[in-house]
Amino acid sequence: MTAQNSIDNAILIAIIGGTGELGSAIARRLVKAGERVIIGSRDAARAASCASALAAELAVAAGKVTGTRDISGTSNVEAAARADLIIVTVPFGSQEATLKDIAAGATGKIVVDTTVPLVPPKVMRVQLPPEGSAAVRAQKILGEGVRVVSAFHNVAAHKLATDAAVECDVLVFGDDKAAREAVIRVVAACGLRGLHAGALANSAAAEALTSILIFLNKHYAVDGAGVRITGNLKSPAAG
Amino acid sequence: MTAQNSIDNAILIAIIGGTGELGSAIARRLVKAGERVIIGSRDAARAASCASALAAELAVAAGKVTGTRDISGTSNVEAAARADLIIVTVPFGSQEATLKDIAAGATGKIVVDTTVPLVPPKVMRVQLPPEGSAAVRAQKILGEGVRVVSAFHNVAAHKLATDAAVECDVLVFGDDKAAREAVIRVVAACGLRGLHAGALANSAAAEALTSILIFLNKHYAVDGAGVRITGNLKSPAAG
Repeated sequence: MTAQNSIDNAILIAIIGGTGELGSAIARRLVKAGERVIIGSRDAARAASCASALAAELAVAAGKVTGTRDISGTSNVEAAARADLIIVTVPFGSQEATLKDIAAGATGKIVVDTTVPLVPPKVMRVQLPPEGSAAVRAQKILGEGVRVVSAFHNVAAHKLATDAAVECDVLVFGDDKAAREAVIRVVAACGLRGLHAGALANSAAAEALTSILIFLNKHYAVDGAGVRITGNLKSPAAG
Repeated sequence: MTAQNSIDNAILIAIIGGTGELGSAIARRLVKAGERVIIGSRDAARAASCASALAAELAVAAGKVTGTRDISGTSNVEAAARADLIIVTVPFGSQEATLKDIAAGATGKIVVDTTVPLVPPKVMRVQLPPEGSAAVRAQKILGEGVRVVSAFHNVAAHKLATDAAVECDVLVFGDDKAAREAVIRVVAACGLRGLHAGALANSAAAEALTSILIFLNKHYAVDGAGVRITGNLKSPAAG
């Protein structure tokens, strides 16, 4: 557990869809930072296998045994039920079904929705859902008993999967400031700067921006464009 | 006329609503770069006065007489009719009426819409219009005979009004690539990096982002937060 970025020692973080590219990258960074992570997948065995592989890799990388205390894997439903904080990393097409699956286990918790409403094949075109954003859609599906926060929309997963610094800020949206603050600490544990970006409805901005970044990647032959907020951010919360 | 950033020598650029903060800042930067600008306002006399003041200021600043060949002012309607390229810098609440006023004079031309759909008093909350973006709304109002491009959504006007470098990229949206390219040259003349950001519908991303920047300005006590795209943009078009 690193001192600077530590989240509350006690909390267990579930990564729903955690065998995917973004989810496994977040899991890896959190475990490296000393956090307790449980990977969820529709396929519990696959989640367990992914967790074991991550534990083995990090034990080698860090020169210590990480073990099942810090990283484990199970079904999405069980991961959500056991965790204190839940990060959902599934494609837009799976968002509704996944959130309905975990809804009962998520009650009273913070759920971090990372969904970007990309609609293939036109992923370079902004196509926000009727609710205005995937984040507001998540809140509607999960109901008022869950504090939904959205984040991680603009980070290139393949960059997050490395140990290198990622040149991208993470805009954090949510209607509950304390919940946003908790998520900003999770983002910091991943080695990124998280910024309070206002109400959950504001998530539309970051969600839409992802289509722009995909366009820029293609048009300017960039390997994972990102976004930085410029200016002298003065609050300590800026990290 | 500077060599590097020069736009086609012949073109005359109208700034509709050009006596406002953003419009006058763009006008000032374009005239300083040697471009030919005509300021438009609902009040033609006010536009002429603004143009004279700008000419006087720049003549002093640059040590040369700029004169009416390069900067003049008139009504919005006349400015649009006379110009080759039109930049619209009015508040969201005035967008529809202004575009209807200039529509006849805009036919066959590029219109750069800079409108951000801010809905006071909640300007820190993303509130995109039913059309999805102010830019798509502009295209609907102006009709298919006009090539609408949108840009300049995220630049702090009071920073653009100075001679200092502005730490902000300009995302340029439009369905016509050649029109986007022309606007990227205008952006470059203003001393900013303009980036091809895809279809006009994608403008929603930059328009929404402005509410986020206003939120960040307040939350982190920033004097004009901006946005930078990170990554090694490889095309020459990146400027």
